[in-house]
Amino acid sequence: MNKKLIEPKLLKGFRDHLPNVMLQKKKMIAKLEKTFESFGFAPIDTPVLEFTEILLGKGGDETDKQLYRFLDNGKRDVTMRYDLTVPLARFTAQHYNELGMPFKAYHIDKVWRGENTHRGRFREFHQCDFDILGTNSNFSDVEIGLVIYTAINNLIGSDDFIIRINNRKILNALTKKLGVEDKTTDILRIIDKIYKQPREKVIDELNQKVGLSEKQIQEVLSFIDIKGSNSEILKELESLFSNVEYAKEGIENLKEFYSLFTSMDIPEKCYQIDLSIARGLDYYTGTVFETMLSNLPELGSICSGGRYDNLTELYTTNKVAGVGASIGLDRLTDGLEMDFSVSTPAQVLIANMDKNYKSEYLKIARELRLANVKTDLFTDDKKLDKQLKYANRKGFRFVIILGSNEFENNTVALKDMNDGNIEQIQRDELVKVFLEKNQL
Amino acid sequence: MNKKLIEPKLLKGFRDHLPNVMLQKKKMIAKLEKTFESFGFAPIDTPVLEFTEILLGKGGDETDKQLYRFLDNGKRDVTMRYDLTVPLARFTAQHYNELGMPFKAYHIDKVWRGENTHRGRFREFHQCDFDILGTNSNFSDVEIGLVIYTAINNLIGSDDFIIRINNRKILNALTKKLGVEDKTTDILRIIDKIYKQPREKVIDELNQKVGLSEKQIQEVLSFIDIKGSNSEILKELESLFSNVEYAKEGIENLKEFYSLFTSMDIPEKCYQIDLSIARGLDYYTGTVFETMLSNLPELGSICSGGRYDNLTELYTTNKVAGVGASIGLDRLTDGLEMDFSVSTPAQVLIANMDKNYKSEYLKIARELRLANVKTDLFTDDKKLDKQLKYANRKGFRFVIILGSNEFENNTVALKDMNDGNIEQIQRDELVKVFLEKNQL
Repeated sequence: MNKKLIEPKLLKGFRDHLPNVMLQKKKMIAKLEKTFESFGFAPIDTPVLEFTEILLGKGGDETDKQLYRFLDNGKRDVTMRYDLTVPLARFTAQHYNELGMPFKAYHIDKVWRGENTHRGRFREFHQCDFDILGTNSNFSDVEIGLVIYTAINNLIGSDDFIIRINNRKILNALTKKLGVEDKTTDILRIIDKIYKQPREKVIDELNQKVGLSEKQIQEVLSFIDIKGSNSEILKELESLFSNVEYAKEGIENLKEFYSLFTSMDIPEKCYQIDLSIARGLDYYTGTVFETMLSNLPELGSICSGGRYDNLTELYTTNKVAGVGASIGLDRLTDGLEMDFSVSTPAQVLIANMDKNYKSEYLKIARELRLANVKTDLFTDDKKLDKQLKYANRKGFRFVIILGSNEFENNTVALKDMNDGNIEQIQRDELVKVFLEKNQL
Repeated sequence: MNKKLIEPKLLKGFRDHLPNVMLQKKKMIAKLEKTFESFGFAPIDTPVLEFTEILLGKGGDETDKQLYRFLDNGKRDVTMRYDLTVPLARFTAQHYNELGMPFKAYHIDKVWRGENTHRGRFREFHQCDFDILGTNSNFSDVEIGLVIYTAINNLIGSDDFIIRINNRKILNALTKKLGVEDKTTDILRIIDKIYKQPREKVIDELNQKVGLSEKQIQEVLSFIDIKGSNSEILKELESLFSNVEYAKEGIENLKEFYSLFTSMDIPEKCYQIDLSIARGLDYYTGTVFETMLSNLPELGSICSGGRYDNLTELYTTNKVAGVGASIGLDRLTDGLEMDFSVSTPAQVLIANMDKNYKSEYLKIARELRLANVKTDLFTDDKKLDKQLKYANRKGFRFVIILGSNEFENNTVALKDMNDGNIEQIQRDELVKVFLEKNQL
């Protein structure tokens, strides 16, 4: 064929996942799903494409350059979802009467943003959201905190992380106390960057952009600088806002959070009240969360979220308050050191030695598979040499070899690719041998 | 807020999945993944968006009305994938040297086609593809057949299905024998519809569209009408094509398939050589498969596939032969009777009875969750009555109730929502009781 070839290539910011990466990513997703479901969160699914009006809201087009937005063949203005929160809001409004509140949902899937691809950002990436909808109870916020703790613990296999907790109501109380309540949003956006920007820049912005006086800025900074153990910070908050009625609820929420977390067997190093955590997004109204890996703080927050008052206000008069968070799966898979040396889910490869024994190879494969031993079978006609190279390259632990000698003796040879040792095993004991190996 | 609301609605042909449906769909996907991985197939992932040229090939625009195709913000001509086969071809060509052949891959994800939405067709739906790439060996075709058998058996939980097998080489031999080899593609497209159209229509098309004579049509029809057991059909093929060299390979392939399948413990009612199976698609060159549910033949084929000579020819001079198939997951979830009454993954709900015991509720939840008992916790302040209604509506099997009486007696009340019975259980035996229940 002499046709001109098309160069196989990807769009900028898009990725393939080869088996070695995909196997690890799927393991992480499976751990998340297991955690979410163990807490009673139910999976949902929404379409990748929605009406642009649904995703942007009427008139909102501030971010449209980052969207994959187009007219479909029916001339509808459609957009690929850029997050999972707006579709969840539409979904909850649309199915409100079927869902039954409170509604615990999780959603793990891809979203698309045509952002600049610098600093390892991708245009197609996963979000992993979990939310408890239709409840004002702070008890839900504690549950979400426990999900974060359990999920990250399961994902990274250690306690080397810290969940930073704050409450927007306390930050609101601060700005009210300073008489700059109307500037709360701007102030929070700026202090949200306190870990990412030089302090002078924050001071400068509070002064230049928001118009705070030097004294007000000092009060803001000394407030978000309050450090200490959780109980020390709570004590300081109570003295700072003693008799300040409008600060009570936020402090009570944090106190309950702290008291319930300490009553669990969760190491206190894993959760820390941090009054500088604001979260940039407008819609948070109560508890806010960020989560950092102790050994990789440069990854930024790997799980963030918080409480919101009304998720569905664009679409319905049913008011849906809730609390939720989102795990940065791609940030984690890119940041964590993982074993990418294995390209097969299977533990064992059955070599294809002799065409007379094909039926025997299939029977061995079937027995092992039925015993939950993932088993590949080399179906090509290649020399054993090549088959062993294949096994080595793909990361199989074992190769089963059965030629005429083994067949006559009712045995199989089992080669351990780690040390190269070959064991002769009775044919009818093969499954038992593997089950024992898997129990080790 | 007095803003005008946006009506929460979906694009035509797109669907939300609520938890009751999503839980079932995820179970099916999990079964498929488990089957594929037990055979050593590795997961891959490709982007939803690709260059249009990659997906359509140069000049190919016959199907463009069905595509979600647009210019992105960088004026690139892009398209949402309409199947998983073309992306697999691009993927294999692009990563050929990294993959290592043979390469066993599976891919379960959504694809998009802007087709008419009549007859329950959706514009966003799942495909579940599995392929063995880079091998000419018919042994691979047998493995694919075994995957089909195992996957469908696991999905529907019974042997009430039939895999129909044929080989394009035999159909090619037929057209060659009839002297109409150059019309093979058209003839196969027409006989592929033999189960879906009146026989007269097929005869008419073979005559009018392809120009076959009455005698040729008779030979074609009597060939695809050959019925009987697998061994009878093979015998008839051998006599029909005795000494016809160009028919040998196809017949040998079918014979090996039959002989290896019979050597397994697979009921013969589950696989049937059927000479009328052609598969419309051009690219099949050897074995072809279709799979019907015995009790729901009207669903059509729920798993189809076959062998192809060169998957990657558009993109590379590396020739990649292979064999694979695709399972119609949405067709199955829509067609099978499933239990959609349960909207929670959790087995048990802990009622929220008394704010003094919040810490106790969390501890019980944590103990159960660590013991792999999926447990929801009612975090809202509602009357028990309402909480039980909630449990009933969402389909929880058990509700744990712990008020002051239980707390003082170190017990919990366990309500079985199936029969309404309440059992008093020692607090420290709760986990044990659940583990026993789960073993039943």
